[in-house]
Amino acid sequence: MAKTVYSFGESSDVRAVSRLDRDASRALLGGKGAGLFEMSRIGLPVPPGFTVTTDVCRAYYARKAEKGLTRHAMRHPDRSAKSIGRAVVVEFLAAVRKLEKATGRRFGAVENPLLVSVRSGSKFSMPGMMDTILNLGLNDRTVLGLEAQTGNPRFAWDCYRRFIAMFGNVVKGIDKEAFESALRQVKAAADAQSDAELSTQALQRLVGLFKDIYKEHSGFPFPQEPGDQLRLAVTAVFESWNNPRAFAYRKLNRIPDDLGTACTVQAMVFGNMGSDCATGVGFTRDPGTGERAFYGEFLVNAQGEDVVAGTRTPRPLGELSKEMPATYKRLLEISGKLEKHYGDVQDMEFTIEKGRLFMLQTRTGKRSAMAALRIAVDMVDEGLITPDQAVMRLTPEQLDELLRPVFEDGASAKAKVLAKGLPAGPGAATGRVYFSADRAVEEAKKGPVILVRPETNPDDIHGMAAAEGILTATGGMTSHAAVVGRGMGKVCVVGCGELETLGLKEGDWISLDGFKGRVLEGRVETQPSEILEVLLGKRPAAKSELYRRYKTFMAWADAARVLEVRANADTPEDAKTATALGAAGIGLCRTEHMFFGEDRIPKVLAMILADSEEERYEAVKALYPLQKADFKAIFKTMRGRPVTVRTIDPPLHEFLPQTLEAAGRVATLHGFDAAKLWAKTLELKEANPMLGHRGCRLGITYPEITDMQARAILSAACELGREGVAASPEIMIPLVGHVTELRHQKKRVAAIAEAVFAEHGSCIRYQVGTMIEVPRAALTAGEIAEEAEFFSFGTNDLTQMTLGYSRDDYGRYIGRYLEMKILDSDPFRSLDRSGVGRLVSMAVEQGRKSRPTLKIGICGEHGGDPASIRFFHDAGLGYVSCSPYRVPVARLAAAQAAISSKALHN
Amino acid sequence: MAKTVYSFGESSDVRAVSRLDRDASRALLGGKGAGLFEMSRIGLPVPPGFTVTTDVCRAYYARKAEKGLTRHAMRHPDRSAKSIGRAVVVEFLAAVRKLEKATGRRFGAVENPLLVSVRSGSKFSMPGMMDTILNLGLNDRTVLGLEAQTGNPRFAWDCYRRFIAMFGNVVKGIDKEAFESALRQVKAAADAQSDAELSTQALQRLVGLFKDIYKEHSGFPFPQEPGDQLRLAVTAVFESWNNPRAFAYRKLNRIPDDLGTACTVQAMVFGNMGSDCATGVGFTRDPGTGERAFYGEFLVNAQGEDVVAGTRTPRPLGELSKEMPATYKRLLEISGKLEKHYGDVQDMEFTIEKGRLFMLQTRTGKRSAMAALRIAVDMVDEGLITPDQAVMRLTPEQLDELLRPVFEDGASAKAKVLAKGLPAGPGAATGRVYFSADRAVEEAKKGPVILVRPETNPDDIHGMAAAEGILTATGGMTSHAAVVGRGMGKVCVVGCGELETLGLKEGDWISLDGFKGRVLEGRVETQPSEILEVLLGKRPAAKSELYRRYKTFMAWADAARVLEVRANADTPEDAKTATALGAAGIGLCRTEHMFFGEDRIPKVLAMILADSEEERYEAVKALYPLQKADFKAIFKTMRGRPVTVRTIDPPLHEFLPQTLEAAGRVATLHGFDAAKLWAKTLELKEANPMLGHRGCRLGITYPEITDMQARAILSAACELGREGVAASPEIMIPLVGHVTELRHQKKRVAAIAEAVFAEHGSCIRYQVGTMIEVPRAALTAGEIAEEAEFFSFGTNDLTQMTLGYSRDDYGRYIGRYLEMKILDSDPFRSLDRSGVGRLVSMAVEQGRKSRPTLKIGICGEHGGDPASIRFFHDAGLGYVSCSPYRVPVARLAAAQAAISSKALHN
Repeated sequence: MAKTVYSFGESSDVRAVSRLDRDASRALLGGKGAGLFEMSRIGLPVPPGFTVTTDVCRAYYARKAEKGLTRHAMRHPDRSAKSIGRAVVVEFLAAVRKLEKATGRRFGAVENPLLVSVRSGSKFSMPGMMDTILNLGLNDRTVLGLEAQTGNPRFAWDCYRRFIAMFGNVVKGIDKEAFESALRQVKAAADAQSDAELSTQALQRLVGLFKDIYKEHSGFPFPQEPGDQLRLAVTAVFESWNNPRAFAYRKLNRIPDDLGTACTVQAMVFGNMGSDCATGVGFTRDPGTGERAFYGEFLVNAQGEDVVAGTRTPRPLGELSKEMPATYKRLLEISGKLEKHYGDVQDMEFTIEKGRLFMLQTRTGKRSAMAALRIAVDMVDEGLITPDQAVMRLTPEQLDELLRPVFEDGASAKAKVLAKGLPAGPGAATGRVYFSADRAVEEAKKGPVILVRPETNPDDIHGMAAAEGILTATGGMTSHAAVVGRGMGKVCVVGCGELETLGLKEGDWISLDGFKGRVLEGRVETQPSEILEVLLGKRPAAKSELYRRYKTFMAWADAARVLEVRANADTPEDAKTATALGAAGIGLCRTEHMFFGEDRIPKVLAMILADSEEERYEAVKALYPLQKADFKAIFKTMRGRPVTVRTIDPPLHEFLPQTLEAAGRVATLHGFDAAKLWAKTLELKEANPMLGHRGCRLGITYPEITDMQARAILSAACELGREGVAASPEIMIPLVGHVTELRHQKKRVAAIAEAVFAEHGSCIRYQVGTMIEVPRAALTAGEIAEEAEFFSFGTNDLTQMTLGYSRDDYGRYIGRYLEMKILDSDPFRSLDRSGVGRLVSMAVEQGRKSRPTLKIGICGEHGGDPASIRFFHDAGLGYVSCSPYRVPVARLAAAQAAISSKALHN
Repeated sequence: MAKTVYSFGESSDVRAVSRLDRDASRALLGGKGAGLFEMSRIGLPVPPGFTVTTDVCRAYYARKAEKGLTRHAMRHPDRSAKSIGRAVVVEFLAAVRKLEKATGRRFGAVENPLLVSVRSGSKFSMPGMMDTILNLGLNDRTVLGLEAQTGNPRFAWDCYRRFIAMFGNVVKGIDKEAFESALRQVKAAADAQSDAELSTQALQRLVGLFKDIYKEHSGFPFPQEPGDQLRLAVTAVFESWNNPRAFAYRKLNRIPDDLGTACTVQAMVFGNMGSDCATGVGFTRDPGTGERAFYGEFLVNAQGEDVVAGTRTPRPLGELSKEMPATYKRLLEISGKLEKHYGDVQDMEFTIEKGRLFMLQTRTGKRSAMAALRIAVDMVDEGLITPDQAVMRLTPEQLDELLRPVFEDGASAKAKVLAKGLPAGPGAATGRVYFSADRAVEEAKKGPVILVRPETNPDDIHGMAAAEGILTATGGMTSHAAVVGRGMGKVCVVGCGELETLGLKEGDWISLDGFKGRVLEGRVETQPSEILEVLLGKRPAAKSELYRRYKTFMAWADAARVLEVRANADTPEDAKTATALGAAGIGLCRTEHMFFGEDRIPKVLAMILADSEEERYEAVKALYPLQKADFKAIFKTMRGRPVTVRTIDPPLHEFLPQTLEAAGRVATLHGFDAAKLWAKTLELKEANPMLGHRGCRLGITYPEITDMQARAILSAACELGREGVAASPEIMIPLVGHVTELRHQKKRVAAIAEAVFAEHGSCIRYQVGTMIEVPRAALTAGEIAEEAEFFSFGTNDLTQMTLGYSRDDYGRYIGRYLEMKILDSDPFRSLDRSGVGRLVSMAVEQGRKSRPTLKIGICGEHGGDPASIRFFHDAGLGYVSCSPYRVPVARLAAAQAAISSKALHN
């Protein structure tokens, strides 16, 4: 192992650390340690100390796994030395000696004893997740030294009793309540209302009681040797990396589990030695609004834990300027220096010991979405950062949040959470509960509606469109409700298993928090996204400062990105939204709905029930004028931007009534024979419809459908052309696995094109390409590219087939799989890089090899996922296509991918 | 283009051809042309002539496709010259000049006119599929020359009228009936009974009528210019490559469509000029039995077409020895010389013109399966061929035929064909029809039974086992009936759509021809395979000459092959059969049936219905002793040979009753709550079970099942070990897609193994590996091989997922796909090399890279398919595993793969 302990009092160590880039120093020393070194380096007042690297933590776990050492054994003083390694201990002790020298105090000495804090700190900030021990070094003798040193016996014994309790809790896992209960007894005996009223004698008694509790619960006496205390504390900090709350936090924030924590040991400074002492936190700008104002809180005569514990109410930092004007001025200077140094908002901790200011921590300040946008734009204006850097300062999730309706300030905090589900469509919604699409549509005329269903299917579309939010009992992040709801920009909570137990009745008010997947009781007021309202023309741009920043920011993002962003849109309305949100075209226009609808379904049924080819041909022909009108409307909206139209994809049985009753109803309505209709449903039923008779398999076995659609698309384009409106259709053949399939369909389209162009006496440019969604298509992409003018990866189906996961069924095991870490993430949300990604890369490489001009995009759900977009950027795709409301997020993610990747390759 | 016309009268051309290997000369000149050149070369009497190469035919089609020339245009004399290319025409005319020189006759000359035959001939023999024209060169003038030349006016005019009819039919597509009808009129007018009774005058009249018919139907006068005749005839031969019957024949025999045909023009010799003339065919050995005896037929005073037409009954060749002893002797010599020269049985055509013998054709003789075996073995004994060559002389299909029951000689030819289906299980069976498995079992005690079902499922297994044959209405070559029936060695016809219309009643006799997929009326007697009876110990080996040859032959095959052949076997009975048929181990032991069965299903249901983990654990535990006994029995049968056991694979809902009624029945029978049982069925129902919660996904979410199975397998092996019986279990985890899945399951198995070995105080060797059946597994095979000790490709599921074809549903379009040539072959019968095969190759390469000792096999249906076996050999697999009855076929296919591949690389 390399050097394992770095002292930030030691200039050679500070120099060594300064040679690392920021990421590397954070990885090695944790965020806290890295910040302390950096502050030391630029001359800020930092109490001396040292950091044990994350390497030591990782080695600790490796050794532990190897030897199968138990948690218990690790804590035995003799063992803990071994467990962090003899070599480390040597460096460690040397660092303690240096610390003694720097402070002029001695560890374990009665005279002028050295006390230290021991804190965790990992590469990524995990606030409050891991353990901290203060006042370490106190024992029955040094407490007397502290008395002498401070001239404050009460302070010394108060520190000692706090230390024993903290150490007992962190190192031995003794419940805090055991100590609290003893404290209550002593207070009762002394008739004291608050801790502050306890006398030195009472505190001394408390120390005795705490030591007994320690021994009783741990089986060991409280360690009097500061060296033992320190080794045990370091080990405990390492152990805290894997405590359940840290584990859960990492999972939520996608932080890898194998990074480990560093451990920083620092000379104590005290904010609680009198009224000339204080402790506090400060932000260089307002983390809620992004306003450029020094912001924070402090407490006089207090230790950091008092601010956190909430027993006293901290005061706004502004007041410190009156209380300690010089110190405040110094703090303000430091704040400015740190922000400039880091080029980003800082979140600082400080302590004032007897009028002297010490900086204990600095880190990048967390901020709200709105603040993030303002800070990013302001800092470019101020010349602090470049536009590219600004683009990296807002996460795609934050941008998404800015485009969603939200609950009014504070409203949701008060509401009762009824149940939790999956956050399938972000935003906030409130409305009355209705359980059927028809009822929802009806009631939506009177007021906002939440559609509540076991699960949704295409029959619910009108209800989903009418509702503010959608709540389902089953289904995952890619269920029908999730995909379609998200596509509509609806707030959507799915897979809410408790739904049935809630006892919701028709007409009840509920609210949905689509950011967190929560169902809230009653009516919680919401407000729409200001930016979105401007984008959709519902609010004037002129008055919106927020929109101005958004526009500036997105212009930087668009300048940075390489990937084109298109939208998946099936209707002129979708197309309009997509354009408003910045889509460069339509990457997927599904034609399914062009077969549904009151005016179409009788024709579709006639097509499916046809007994002869002629009969079927006639039925298909009847659909032609309707579909042509559909395409004209979409092309018109897109005004010459490319529109990728997918020919018929779903298996025919999806168009048929699914129950005997429904068959009866439909038959009566449209004048079909019910028995025949039902027989056809049974005949067409498939064991695995996902792998069934659909996609181009339909277009090949029923070529008249492809012909009709090609004719509708091309005639629409020609007719518009005569009206002076450009149209760029790209005809996309779905589910191709063999080049022969595409060749067949392309020939049909070419023949139709020839005929249509002859009829119109004019040509338009069009392309024929294919979805790459069957693994075989990716494997034989070279051949397929000989026919295809473009590829569009259908990563949903490609994931289903490559992994063998049915999207409709994988809910049965995906939860367990994620829990057990069989999978790192849901492959339908974020692309499986090593499996599906490999196929994508192969197909891109081979496709381009056989046709260098091949246009390549992706139109699966992954088109809107930032991590996947990063992959698509790296894989060299030309565009991503996602749902209209996801377009801004995809634009930002594409920009960030381009910037990160450039950084990596520079 | 290179040289396009080769003359076999010309020694420089003969030499040029002799430098090609046999395959290349057949590819260039067709089988017929190549044979004529070879016979010329070794000095046999061949009438002179020349061959236009297949290159010309391919160029003809290329030019045709390019110019979009119609069939009609191609036939116009002026165009046809262009259509075969000016350069070719020059060579062609030169060849005609040489032919004139060689024969001393002149094309189109009245004095001593040259007449020729024009025949097709492609690389692979397609007997009778393409067109032939005889007597070309005759016209109104040369017919007089022929009169003079032969002194036989009747003969000359008979030739002329035959020529016009043949030419009209072949070149202009005029229906033969038009000419036949004129012939009947003339015969009636002449009061003649047979053609032979017609006078020269009548024949001259007929020629006039035929010319009129020709002009009427074609719009052109009959071409008098022999050069025009010849060019038109060559074009017509090229066109005949794509006539419907040739097309169908190639499809059936998997001959590529783009080879094209050669065209051989040869001086006519006449077997019909008198009683010193004859024509006939000969085989160097008996093609039915393989006996070493000159075999064939001849007709005196006849042309080849008379033998084919069947108007006269040919006589056995033996009689020629009395009729023309010297010629017969010469023929016998030639026969011996040809067989020795080619090293294989020859099928020859000859003509005797005025006592002079001419050889017109020689080709490899087609033969029955039994003859093929005998000839292969005999020829090695005679020193004619090597054992490796012998191994190539029997197709895997022929070997399979030798192991199947067959109809008694001639019996099936007389039977009426009721319907056709797919030939899913080869062999012949007869029995009474029963429509349910239970009835079939009952009636099978009284006599042979044919189980007739719409389709079969696992509930029918006992009925299938009891039946002689299985007939189903639906399902393809890989349906349950096909796969399981084939596995049991049952005669099986599936997908017989007409079944319902046959009006079969319970108890009716029917017979099944499983070779051709035919359903025959009534009882057609069958006889078992002699070889199989010996192998299964039902007949003594000593008396069977057939078995002796089989044994010799298979020993050669086994010596040649590299691939190991295992069997898929789930029971001791299967294992015993597999061993008897030469399996080296079990490549796939499915454990599904170990969960079915009267004694198990209540326990399995209890497991599925368990409300708590403990309850489920108890239910699983109850299965343990039963499964352990199952494994012991199988291991015991296999006596130390490797046995690959697959842990639980099917989704749990497969074990549940599928209808409400069945749920009631099952619940009552086993004491469960019917409502709960049915609710569970509905709960576990999946949209796409193929991609559902099954395979290792079950083993991971219900690890107690894997634990129980591992314990049963390993305990069985340990207990046998104590009895002195070796066992080599290989535990195979199904449906792995991520290495983490395998790692999880392997850990569970290892923990169980440790416990079991401790309990027994002994160890046994075992391995843990995985199926590669999910595309992602193949894509990440390198990672997976870090954990897997072996791979076994599950090519059924791998095909389903890679192509996105559900085996249960692909019947809806596969027929059209094959017809339309979207697919070359059914990917579930023969491995899709460019898609699935690519994944297999990638996985082999990466798997071996990460674990060089990795054992790799395949256990899908493709393991028994010869073409796929060839691929697996080339891909470097270690073994294939197939159904027990397929083992000999796989051994032979593996040997042929090794020999072919060696030849290719030498």
